[in-house]
Amino acid sequence: MSLTCVALGLDHRHIYGMTENMAKAGVRCVGYWTLGEPAILPGFVKRFPEIPRLNQLEDALNCGADLALISAIPADRADLTVQAMQHGMDVMSDKPGCTSFEQLDHIRQAVSDTGRIWSVNFSERFETPVSTLASELVDSGAIGKVVQTIGLGPHRLNRLTRPEWFFQRDRYGGILTDIASHQIDQFLHYTGSTSAEITNAFVANYANPADPGLQDFGELNLRSAQGTGYIRVDWFTPDALPNWGDGRLTLLGTEGYIELRKYVDVGGAAGTDHLILVNGETCKKQDASDAGLPYFSRLAHDIKHRSETAMTQAHCFTVMDLALRAQEMAESP
Amino acid sequence: MSLTCVALGLDHRHIYGMTENMAKAGVRCVGYWTLGEPAILPGFVKRFPEIPRLNQLEDALNCGADLALISAIPADRADLTVQAMQHGMDVMSDKPGCTSFEQLDHIRQAVSDTGRIWSVNFSERFETPVSTLASELVDSGAIGKVVQTIGLGPHRLNRLTRPEWFFQRDRYGGILTDIASHQIDQFLHYTGSTSAEITNAFVANYANPADPGLQDFGELNLRSAQGTGYIRVDWFTPDALPNWGDGRLTLLGTEGYIELRKYVDVGGAAGTDHLILVNGETCKKQDASDAGLPYFSRLAHDIKHRSETAMTQAHCFTVMDLALRAQEMAESP
Repeated sequence: MSLTCVALGLDHRHIYGMTENMAKAGVRCVGYWTLGEPAILPGFVKRFPEIPRLNQLEDALNCGADLALISAIPADRADLTVQAMQHGMDVMSDKPGCTSFEQLDHIRQAVSDTGRIWSVNFSERFETPVSTLASELVDSGAIGKVVQTIGLGPHRLNRLTRPEWFFQRDRYGGILTDIASHQIDQFLHYTGSTSAEITNAFVANYANPADPGLQDFGELNLRSAQGTGYIRVDWFTPDALPNWGDGRLTLLGTEGYIELRKYVDVGGAAGTDHLILVNGETCKKQDASDAGLPYFSRLAHDIKHRSETAMTQAHCFTVMDLALRAQEMAESP
Repeated sequence: MSLTCVALGLDHRHIYGMTENMAKAGVRCVGYWTLGEPAILPGFVKRFPEIPRLNQLEDALNCGADLALISAIPADRADLTVQAMQHGMDVMSDKPGCTSFEQLDHIRQAVSDTGRIWSVNFSERFETPVSTLASELVDSGAIGKVVQTIGLGPHRLNRLTRPEWFFQRDRYGGILTDIASHQIDQFLHYTGSTSAEITNAFVANYANPADPGLQDFGELNLRSAQGTGYIRVDWFTPDALPNWGDGRLTLLGTEGYIELRKYVDVGGAAGTDHLILVNGETCKKQDASDAGLPYFSRLAHDIKHRSETAMTQAHCFTVMDLALRAQEMAESP
């Protein structure tokens, strides 16, 4: 049985990676639907000229695909997710999967009612091979018990290419919901935590006063029975950096530490996916770009076999719940 | 007029750098006093064979030196500091300068009564040339306004070489007071903050249950009118690291960022003092080992001229006050 998918909402370029990686996992995209002419549409058509546009959402929902790939405007994703599930599809959503507790509740209800999978594609883990190697090392006990993580998610503002919704708090959901959900996923995953408490959260607009809806800085702290985590996200990537952001993750273990330089190693090695491992025997930096991206084939497996090998459903809910809680705490007076 | 100093309490090897760097700044050490035979004493005698031992504290206090260098057991430093001031000496103390609010109050009173200088040698800034270059870059506006700092202070436990007091909470003062005072200094300095709030603090003993007095992990968050800071300190440096700890500092500015790899660049460049600068025009890693250590000559200048060029007295008090507050918050139920 060959799986198929349909793309709903082409408002963020993350849809490129979602579509491409599912194709590599054998899941063919049979069509896409989106509102109007979003800026990333030409890039999608160029990458995937064989995928037909479906003019009506109803057509897309009834196309018979197994999986919906959703990358609409963040605030619209939950509604599309629920509709897709009600039409029998599992869902892979761009992050954030939703922007309010009410939306999250609707998705929980839909998952409960339909038995469909809701998988938010936390691409800063699932689309970086270095994260795969880090998972393998942690699982093998290379750094002992992971007791702390630091996740840094700097992003380039790219003001001129951004649509209106990017600057509207209610549409993108706030910087912690939008970006930091990545690093919350990583904290829970690498520490092996199934729940956590937000102990500190803060957002600011330091450098963009003309865009009051934009939060150009955010940070939060997590604490679980396993350890603690700190997360910092921002829109300050400077122009001279050759990519969109110097994303980092540091895993502190009781017997060593790992640093992931996901996208760039400034002044160091070329390419992406650099992993630093220091423990009792090893002290080195290595290229992890060939460590693979198992999330996508695992999700295909889960769709076929109703399993949870890509990510547990509970984990996905917990990540988005914590992201919303952090956002709420940061915005509380 | 040539300045002189005397060393009081040789319980931490930091006294080596304090003595050597003040000698380079033209301040001759005329003697030392310490209780018993601390483990670091032979190393001191080997480095400074010409410095005589003074058998009685009274002799040291009355030796007529301009400056007392204090590196006794942390809990004993405040009392020596006050006595040194009462005998007319300025004081450079190893960090932490004190271990309780009561001690800090005594030092404040002594400074007020005597007009002497209390300078805590925050060596992770003052003894690392890369920190000097970072200060120059920030002052020149190279990364815009600094809105956030992340300070990581991992340390090697070196269990076999540690004296009893190292494992006694009341003697070393707690991991945030002891180690994180370094990174609090750096946060205030690089963000240009004169005060801050502790928004989160946590300590743990993850891997050393047989030493209940040891805190092998600590973290805290700061918030000021200028920005926020996160600090993580620990005793988990793994054996394969070629030095005592992979100390880092990241300065996030509105127009760029700086990362300091103070002691090692794993898998990268040789040596110490690596600075990464990324802004609108520059994206590079550079060797900052020749940027100098102005703190020591500035302190000598301040002793002569009753100025505050090395560090303001208020800054020094604020750092230790915040460190004690963080420690208290972390240990509150």
